[in-house]
Amino acid sequence: MSRHVYATSLALCLAGWALPLLAQAPRSEPITPIAPATITRPALVELGKKLYFDPRLSKSGFISCNSCHNLSMGGSDNLATSIGHNWQKGPINAPTVLNSSMNVAQFWDGRAATLKAQAGGPIANPGEMAFTHELAVEVLSTIPGYVTEFQQAFGTPAIDIDRVTGAIAAFEETLVTPNSRFDKWLGGDKRALSLEEQRGYDLFKASGCTACHNGPAAGGASFRKMGVVEPYRTDNPAEGRMAVTGKDADRFNFKVPTLRNVELTYPYFHDGAANTLAESVEVMGRIQLGRRYTAAETASIVAFLKTLTGDQPRFAIPQLPPSSDATPRPQPFK
Amino acid sequence: MSRHVYATSLALCLAGWALPLLAQAPRSEPITPIAPATITRPALVELGKKLYFDPRLSKSGFISCNSCHNLSMGGSDNLATSIGHNWQKGPINAPTVLNSSMNVAQFWDGRAATLKAQAGGPIANPGEMAFTHELAVEVLSTIPGYVTEFQQAFGTPAIDIDRVTGAIAAFEETLVTPNSRFDKWLGGDKRALSLEEQRGYDLFKASGCTACHNGPAAGGASFRKMGVVEPYRTDNPAEGRMAVTGKDADRFNFKVPTLRNVELTYPYFHDGAANTLAESVEVMGRIQLGRRYTAAETASIVAFLKTLTGDQPRFAIPQLPPSSDATPRPQPFK
Repeated sequence: MSRHVYATSLALCLAGWALPLLAQAPRSEPITPIAPATITRPALVELGKKLYFDPRLSKSGFISCNSCHNLSMGGSDNLATSIGHNWQKGPINAPTVLNSSMNVAQFWDGRAATLKAQAGGPIANPGEMAFTHELAVEVLSTIPGYVTEFQQAFGTPAIDIDRVTGAIAAFEETLVTPNSRFDKWLGGDKRALSLEEQRGYDLFKASGCTACHNGPAAGGASFRKMGVVEPYRTDNPAEGRMAVTGKDADRFNFKVPTLRNVELTYPYFHDGAANTLAESVEVMGRIQLGRRYTAAETASIVAFLKTLTGDQPRFAIPQLPPSSDATPRPQPFK
Repeated sequence: MSRHVYATSLALCLAGWALPLLAQAPRSEPITPIAPATITRPALVELGKKLYFDPRLSKSGFISCNSCHNLSMGGSDNLATSIGHNWQKGPINAPTVLNSSMNVAQFWDGRAATLKAQAGGPIANPGEMAFTHELAVEVLSTIPGYVTEFQQAFGTPAIDIDRVTGAIAAFEETLVTPNSRFDKWLGGDKRALSLEEQRGYDLFKASGCTACHNGPAAGGASFRKMGVVEPYRTDNPAEGRMAVTGKDADRFNFKVPTLRNVELTYPYFHDGAANTLAESVEVMGRIQLGRRYTAAETASIVAFLKTLTGDQPRFAIPQLPPSSDATPRPQPFK
């Protein structure tokens, strides 16, 4: 065996050995993996978790963050629009809280720049929790268990709305959903997706869906017009981003929703009008991309979308500290 | 040393050695310890836990068992009376689900003999979840994840209301709260209660409170008249046990509520009119026992009552199986 032949054989041999390793390397794709949450301030997160589940942040004592962003149900309420104080009908579909830390801004129209800014909104919205920041802080300040937890989380026991929303946001930042089958496939596990699911992903990319639904959250990164090729017909009066910018060009521009865990976050669109993934894919293809998918194509894309369901939040149900004799009582019927 | 003297010394010696052991022996008291739950059918309990948290058992898709018997809040909603479908005001205070398996019967008037019989009530009550058993079963039957879990829990995948309520009841039977400080004291740990708390318990017994509040749940075992010595004044029209038996003698007879975790289950009484433990102790002493406690006596009894808070349910928030395209959608506003 000449030296040349030997070297070639060695190279082939090494290549054969290296191939499975190369297959394990992360793919470069428009949708990227979700990293697990890193918790740097556990006391703050624990406090925020309790506040997230605490209906005493509402006038009625009945509605908590978790009522409409239910962590047993994909971080959503699975209703077209939510139910607020006194059974008021909400104006828009409640977006999932899962992976919301990756959003460019919060709410469909992006009117809150951060999760912290968002968290104060529903508490004081007369159609949602119908409370005030002042009353919420007064309630919490009379609960000894909370005073202790604010001390632990912030170093001093003072309670104000800034700390309340900061704690809720810190908890919400932990609500990421890594390890979906799609992420495993991205990480190199070819068997994580079926051929049907891979076909669906290929079609999803080839059709142009990833122009908007990209990044780790497969959405959430930009505002886009609902109805590019064909107008979207809805009774919902929401005008999207224009409500924030005042610019007519932003009319019907909505934040692109994340597709992570989309199997769990039905119904779809800002008006909650689409009950199924198949219907959503059909409508999106038609009004955004000018494309009419066959039933088989739609089924493939739906199969792919269901691979985006990741690890759901896993923690023990929080135990809320009891009110004291001094705590103002909820007023559900006044 | 005579044989007699030796034997006496030995007996004394043994007695001295045995005394600490005797101190560890369980006390014989009218309130007895709560035993931890024994789970014999884990798949059934897991299914029941999901159903307990699932708002799809309501017409609105918004109200679950946990809405009014919130396991983050002592198994209650901490409201005078609950909020039902379309924000209807409930007729009576929602009793805690904790330790409810020890009740002689369910509801304040005992109209359900078992937890299983109780569980079907709110689902079909137009003022609560406002659904029907038939529609609830139809919803669950279209959810593949539930079909699998019914198969695992019962051996066959059939879903009917009998299985639904049976699973919920099986979960509720696990919601016991052992290891309260009072139970540790009962078990012989003298330091588990402060002197003030022990004084409160002594007064609680000496006043006659344990005539009704006895057994492991410190209540729940009998129906008693509200207002024995003095009438109880309330706007609440509930007539208690008479609604079930039709007997005039049962008017205002209500099931004695458990005092376990009573620190967490405010407000108190069937009408939820008493906001604090101190107020409850004052009213009960006066109208049931003809006794006017001093402020110090009331404070001691309240201190004792707070030692009845046991281990709260501890489990990961359940993840509910998603609806399928065939699942009927909630109708919150129709």
